[in-house]
Amino acid sequence: MTSSASPRFRHQLVIPFQDADVAGMLFFAHLFRYAHEAYERFMSALGHPLAGIIGGGAYLLPLAHAEADYRRPMRLGEPIRIELGVGHLGESSFRLHYLFLGGDGQLSATAETVHVTFGVVEKRPVAIPPGLRKALEPYLLGDMA
Amino acid sequence: MTSSASPRFRHQLVIPFQDADVAGMLFFAHLFRYAHEAYERFMSALGHPLAGIIGGGAYLLPLAHAEADYRRPMRLGEPIRIELGVGHLGESSFRLHYLFLGGDGQLSATAETVHVTFGVVEKRPVAIPPGLRKALEPYLLGDMA
Amino acid sequence: MTSSASPRFRHQLVIPFQDADVAGMLFFAHLFRYAHEAYERFMSALGHPLAGIIGGGAYLLPLAHAEADYRRPMRLGEPIRIELGVGHLGESSFRLHYLFLGGDGQLSATAETVHVTFGVVEKRPVAIPPGLRKALEPYLLGDMA
Amino acid sequence: MTSSASPRFRHQLVIPFQDADVAGMLFFAHLFRYAHEAYERFMSALGHPLAGIIGGGAYLLPLAHAEADYRRPMRLGEPIRIELGVGHLGESSFRLHYLFLGGDGQLSATAETVHVTFGVVEKRPVAIPPGLRKALEPYLLGDMA
Repeated sequence: MTSSASPRFRHQLVIPFQDADVAGMLFFAHLFRYAHEAYERFMSALGHPLAGIIGGGAYLLPLAHAEADYRRPMRLGEPIRIELGVGHLGESSFRLHYLFLGGDGQLSATAETVHVTFGVVEKRPVAIPPGLRKALEPYLLGDMA
Repeated sequence: MTSSASPRFRHQLVIPFQDADVAGMLFFAHLFRYAHEAYERFMSALGHPLAGIIGGGAYLLPLAHAEADYRRPMRLGEPIRIELGVGHLGESSFRLHYLFLGGDGQLSATAETVHVTFGVVEKRPVAIPPGLRKALEPYLLGDMA
Repeated sequence: MTSSASPRFRHQLVIPFQDADVAGMLFFAHLFRYAHEAYERFMSALGHPLAGIIGGGAYLLPLAHAEADYRRPMRLGEPIRIELGVGHLGESSFRLHYLFLGGDGQLSATAETVHVTFGVVEKRPVAIPPGLRKALEPYLLGDMA
Repeated sequence: MTSSASPRFRHQLVIPFQDADVAGMLFFAHLFRYAHEAYERFMSALGHPLAGIIGGGAYLLPLAHAEADYRRPMRLGEPIRIELGVGHLGESSFRLHYLFLGGDGQLSATAETVHVTFGVVEKRPVAIPPGLRKALEPYLLGDMA
């Protein structure tokens, strides 16, 4: 299956004044906030909202890794579209992959986050619950991701 | 030269209330803010404060890449010590490497950021100015970084 | 004219994970970020986007005052609707008034911000430009504000 | 007792790059973050750290009100000294008052926050515990506050 065959979850935002630096460009760390907001909306759309997972008390989803590559500046007031896919679905962790498209539709940045299903009682990584795994699978990207 | 032979720049902080999540643990994206604050203090200590570089108008230092690995949760109120070194010093970019040590002195996370010397007039990467290069060199980590 | 006769500008958001504290409630300072984002969208809708004002170089709009009253906690994942009106339109400053309505449509918080039209060349407050004044007037709240 | 007779708790910081806006000035909402960080350090110094209060499970300290007045811009890289005092000590709430002094030692901004002792079991405001009251009293400002 190729990347283009998988759906990506979309999230939109406008770079707010407060997130721009002295040069009028997005301060790099805010990209990770945006990625997490897209991930929150994605989980809610899948029927697994973070508030419900935390309230459920069975497992948490701490991040083990995060990275971003910045290709072009993103500017104050610029509309950004995030496209999120699942880069890898492991035994007790999954990797999300994000594209950040600028106002002209071209790629401005990419990011990845790795989330671990960590058992609250077990105090160690546990298998991704079947319901969550099944919900993530349709968004699994192909080899090109 | 080994990593232990190079000095690392140190920066300390206490995880504030607002940076902890519902589970009382540091929200991952704030680690990048802390890394950047350590970098700002480092540049000031080297005699190249960011405000001066920006005001100078010759070049900016946009980030091309950022990544972090999280080994243990960092908690609300926990004192954190950041140790910063230069992982790589290229022609027109440099890579910084950060250790985050928790309240017990053990490693909680690591991070890296890549900074490009981008000419304001040239509108492309330019050579790291000799003065900045000379200031960064003593902090260059060895092969173990 | 009564308050109910004036239109209010609406802005919606969902409380993201990162803005909730250990108790799962919105950290108070983020309310001011939300107010400012509503203000940015309002100014854009009026045809006076902040990026354009700053780029124009004639005046800036620094805040002279900000305040908020918190009536009920706002929670992680809760949809919030902001309703913005102009509380006062002075010679060289204007006051914005914000209602924050929770997921049940009831009032959760209120806020106010005072913005000064500060001349870049004059280095002091200057009269609100006629075009901006005219754009703000329809949103002027009555005595009940 | 006059204001000058009461000690104020001091907290220092340097305005980081990320908190400055396009004009190189502090974005207003960050002032509330700084106030809260000073409050956290103050509570820890009094022997009532927030993490302990929350973990204790008896009461929380939600904010009922926050306000700030901005007199002068605070700039990227500027050292700021916060001086905190107790403006009012009520039955089930207390008001903190903050001075923000710029790099030249002159006043740049003031702020106030009102904190309610909210019983976790009672689900309503409860009397400030005697130990906390006693710890706050020495910092009570006089009529000039």
